Amino acid sequence: MSLVLDPAAQDLLFREARTANTFTEEPVTEEQVQAIYDLVKFGPTAFNQSPLRVTLVRSAEARERLVQHMAEGNQAKTSTAPLVAILSADNEFHEELPQLFPHFPQAKDAFFAERPVREGSATLNAALQAAYFIIGVRAAGLAAGPMTGLDFEGVRKEFLDDDHTPLMVVNIGKPGEDAWFPRSPRLSYDEVVKTV
Amino acid sequence: MSLVLDPAAQDLLFREARTANTFTEEPVTEEQVQAIYDLVKFGPTAFNQSPLRVTLVRSAEARERLVQHMAEGNQAKTSTAPLVAILSADNEFHEELPQLFPHFPQAKDAFFAERPVREGSATLNAALQAAYFIIGVRAAGLAAGPMTGLDFEGVRKEFLDDDHTPLMVVNIGKPGEDAWFPRSPRLSYDEVVKTV
Repeated sequence: MSLVLDPAAQDLLFREARTANTFTEEPVTEEQVQAIYDLVKFGPTAFNQSPLRVTLVRSAEARERLVQHMAEGNQAKTSTAPLVAILSADNEFHEELPQLFPHFPQAKDAFFAERPVREGSATLNAALQAAYFIIGVRAAGLAAGPMTGLDFEGVRKEFLDDDHTPLMVVNIGKPGEDAWFPRSPRLSYDEVVKTV
Repeated sequence: MSLVLDPAAQDLLFREARTANTFTEEPVTEEQVQAIYDLVKFGPTAFNQSPLRVTLVRSAEARERLVQHMAEGNQAKTSTAPLVAILSADNEFHEELPQLFPHFPQAKDAFFAERPVREGSATLNAALQAAYFIIGVRAAGLAAGPMTGLDFEGVRKEFLDDDHTPLMVVNIGKPGEDAWFPRSPRLSYDEVVKTV
């Protein structure tokens, strides 16, 4: 046994967890989302920059506006999931750096004065945090359905602003009937890992 | 308790896990890396594209070549970590899609015929997998030290090729003396999560 993580936790987070395409009607509460965030906020990012921002789409009116920007194949599940979250990167994260990285407050100006540098760093690090968030959803006993089939510019204009880059939309809830396809194969260790 | 994940697992993966800057000399075995991969390979990616590639830098000669491309502040830890891994995105992941996404083999040509589209998708999804990998390192009872302070083009030329985009270098091992700074603050829920 090379892993020290409890096998039940391995199953919950990776082996038995699946991307759900259908959901039950059981709501996802504010308390659940807060517990997820309060766990996964500790995942590492460069300079602790923490650029992920989350927009919870809870009102029927906002849900309708979002569905219009989803690819056709994603519209039904985006309409019916108990909760839908837009995950985005804050390209102005450097404003928070003196608070987030107090032992080197110069980082804000020394490394992130230029917007293109910030955008690249924000996208990469918010993507790491998006993965932590997906793991956190699973840690709450829920299924996540991350989607990138959508009109990103439309979602940005509808829900965000020029300082935020949408990365994905995630359906969240208890899996419903026929929630997933059979598990697809993964690449073998030797196809992915090389040693030099 | 809104989370179903065992509190000890929460601590191991998020609350007590830290980015290590120093390591003991205890080696990281091939069996450990294989166990990490065999767990985190199940993390979700778009179309199951699984673009992450891992280069384990095990020889002293390769380690020296890598250290030269690291930012000065990252050189000492890259020199001394028991294991160092280069994480990259395979921009030609679509070649594997008919195997990885067998219920829609047309995805390869329908969505990923153009290289810029593939690069964007590969970088985002490999970043998700990089986060799963970091979580997996922690699941093995090890500390990860992800770094983006490096000459990416230098690392690409030295270890990869034009079809691969390096994302980060990760030091892996048991934490050593004074392995980390005090935990930096995180943004509050209300600073990160909005509801519409």
